[in-house]
Amino acid sequence: MNIELVTVGTELLLGFTVDTNSAWMGKALAAVGVPVVRRTSIGDSPDAIRDAIDAALQRTGFVITTGGLGPTRDDITKNVVADLLGMPLQFDDAIWAMLTERWARFGRKLVESNRTQAMVPRGATVLTNHWGSAPGLWLESPRGVVVMLPGVPGEMIKLMEHEVLPRLATRGDGTVIRSTTVRTSGIGESVLAEGIGVLEDELAPLTLAYLPGVAGVDLRVDAWGLSPAEADARLADASARLHHNVGVNAWGDGEDDLAALLLVRLRARGLTLAVAESCTGGMLGARLTEVPGSSDVFIGGVLTYSNASKVELAGVPVSVLEAHGAVSQETAEALVAGVAARLATPTAVSITGIAGPGGGSEEKPVGLVWIATLADGEVQSRRLHFSGDRGEIRARAVQTALFDLWRR
Amino acid sequence: MNIELVTVGTELLLGFTVDTNSAWMGKALAAVGVPVVRRTSIGDSPDAIRDAIDAALQRTGFVITTGGLGPTRDDITKNVVADLLGMPLQFDDAIWAMLTERWARFGRKLVESNRTQAMVPRGATVLTNHWGSAPGLWLESPRGVVVMLPGVPGEMIKLMEHEVLPRLATRGDGTVIRSTTVRTSGIGESVLAEGIGVLEDELAPLTLAYLPGVAGVDLRVDAWGLSPAEADARLADASARLHHNVGVNAWGDGEDDLAALLLVRLRARGLTLAVAESCTGGMLGARLTEVPGSSDVFIGGVLTYSNASKVELAGVPVSVLEAHGAVSQETAEALVAGVAARLATPTAVSITGIAGPGGGSEEKPVGLVWIATLADGEVQSRRLHFSGDRGEIRARAVQTALFDLWRR
Repeated sequence: MNIELVTVGTELLLGFTVDTNSAWMGKALAAVGVPVVRRTSIGDSPDAIRDAIDAALQRTGFVITTGGLGPTRDDITKNVVADLLGMPLQFDDAIWAMLTERWARFGRKLVESNRTQAMVPRGATVLTNHWGSAPGLWLESPRGVVVMLPGVPGEMIKLMEHEVLPRLATRGDGTVIRSTTVRTSGIGESVLAEGIGVLEDELAPLTLAYLPGVAGVDLRVDAWGLSPAEADARLADASARLHHNVGVNAWGDGEDDLAALLLVRLRARGLTLAVAESCTGGMLGARLTEVPGSSDVFIGGVLTYSNASKVELAGVPVSVLEAHGAVSQETAEALVAGVAARLATPTAVSITGIAGPGGGSEEKPVGLVWIATLADGEVQSRRLHFSGDRGEIRARAVQTALFDLWRR
Repeated sequence: MNIELVTVGTELLLGFTVDTNSAWMGKALAAVGVPVVRRTSIGDSPDAIRDAIDAALQRTGFVITTGGLGPTRDDITKNVVADLLGMPLQFDDAIWAMLTERWARFGRKLVESNRTQAMVPRGATVLTNHWGSAPGLWLESPRGVVVMLPGVPGEMIKLMEHEVLPRLATRGDGTVIRSTTVRTSGIGESVLAEGIGVLEDELAPLTLAYLPGVAGVDLRVDAWGLSPAEADARLADASARLHHNVGVNAWGDGEDDLAALLLVRLRARGLTLAVAESCTGGMLGARLTEVPGSSDVFIGGVLTYSNASKVELAGVPVSVLEAHGAVSQETAEALVAGVAARLATPTAVSITGIAGPGGGSEEKPVGLVWIATLADGEVQSRRLHFSGDRGEIRARAVQTALFDLWRR
């Protein structure tokens, strides 16, 4: 069983939107053994949409579309498909009731253009969208299956996970394409390759890819065309070997988030956490609080972007700032001790550095960052020099702060 | 003149690679007046490549391909195209000499498989690749034009800029595709459409697209097939009408960042800014400090994720928390007043809310957020109810906080 994707939207062709949906869908579909064999992007033109879906149905008999389901005039995918498959649109009272309820909940009034969102091809299965207003649609016809999903990434993903993938899992040939990822921080790609290069042959037929990013290097192992049981067994073995080989720098797997793992570790020990951020300006707090339920561990922090705020909010002595400057070991350590004292917490982390592009000097260049951690009653700190632009330096500082505390 | 893109690579279909090339190419081609009307991605299969290029040539007579030009077995684009257009491959001594020289420079030895990189369809124009080993190829045939480029983004971009775009600029009919975007916040897509729907006809032949996101709705106007001067004049007029019609909710244009605009506005008045964040946990500070040079306006803030930290860091009275709870108008206002007093700043903003997924109640549901702003010596606050998941609620709260302060 093969599948084709058809993504609709002039903004994709003109490059205003990068098509991240397709990559996500390709991965998710491969994971249930249904490879995507072609992807076509066309603009909001009825002829082009019709032609692309028609040709895709001829080749594979199974098409998923994204985009063109909204309430505005250029949202025409549904009309074109209804016409192509001979399933005329009908007003659906249940969808209208859901939209009315949803709009009321947010204190808004439905307008005339919303009525088009309640039109459904006759015989279609409605894939209820709890995350937005345009429902997905699953159409089975003599020509094949067409599944229509909204183009908003969050809504597409939820509908894939809850409605599409479960229905597809029962249709494949038994083999799957699966992957496992080991996540590392604090070690470079070439050093990693020196250590685990020898494993690459042993892992065959599995393949190993190095994926460097600001959070560290991910090691992805792919298994192709195996049964689910064999793929899982081989991937588990590969993951164990990689973890053993890389050691402490391999902190997680798959989609693991270092912030979430750190919170779990602290929660297990009954510890709370506070942060003091200078050059990252809130990014570390944002990362930690992205994790649902973080509030029982993360209690708060201070954003000390100016010298005065370092003194006022974290009690950094003026004399330390004058003697050593804002980006220094002494200030990083005073920040972490100060915020911990203010918030009466046994664990804390501070970041102070120069994210650039301005503000660097010969002695203190752009990319210089001091990170201090407090744990077990002891402050430790280290000096780092990150490469990249302002965004990369800040992201690397946040990841390193999490890693330093996680390791302790 | 229209163009189609055909991108080759199984890794694109399986989602291991996000196709950023296509967006870049779409933008660059539109800027010289050559719209991409369709994009097809297929795997490394000769039949699929042949079929996709054949169909694209029939439709438009002009195809650019990326990928499949490397030295490995799955790099077959060139062979397929040579066969399709009846232009047999020949060994090219000049390319071989360049490859030999390049490899020697990096201290490597050419292997047999590199010989395939020196094979060129008879009659093709070689687009010299100074940035990698696979040259681009420009083929003109009775069937139309096929341009083949490597899939490595850096090499594709250089070849587009130096070889492809200059050749295309002289082929166009002098018309261009240009766009302008008006950015809005605090107003929904359907309400916007009610207000400016009437403009859609007046703007013709320009087209209007609604692009909703967590930051608000972007209104993009596209001008197609006009001379550069006429496109610019009409877009300027369209932008002015949209701004006039939407009013205060239209806060910017193009790639404008509301955080950056807010900082500019405050800087012009010599004001400083502080934040107090509860449910957003640092995201607002992170957004502000993403802007280079933000430190002369943004002085710092507090992350008050627990009740104790609201008291300790922002001086929120315990009695307020007890009487009204952490997510309340009173707490939002006490937070903004407290952080402003601590950091002696005339401008501040606070956010407190329930980002979910847990923590909601009937009276205070997930998505409820209070935002308070301090400006001109006066605190104002408002209650919002955002939809979406935890991440979206937090992002919408940050954007609304910026918008509320910007508006004042």
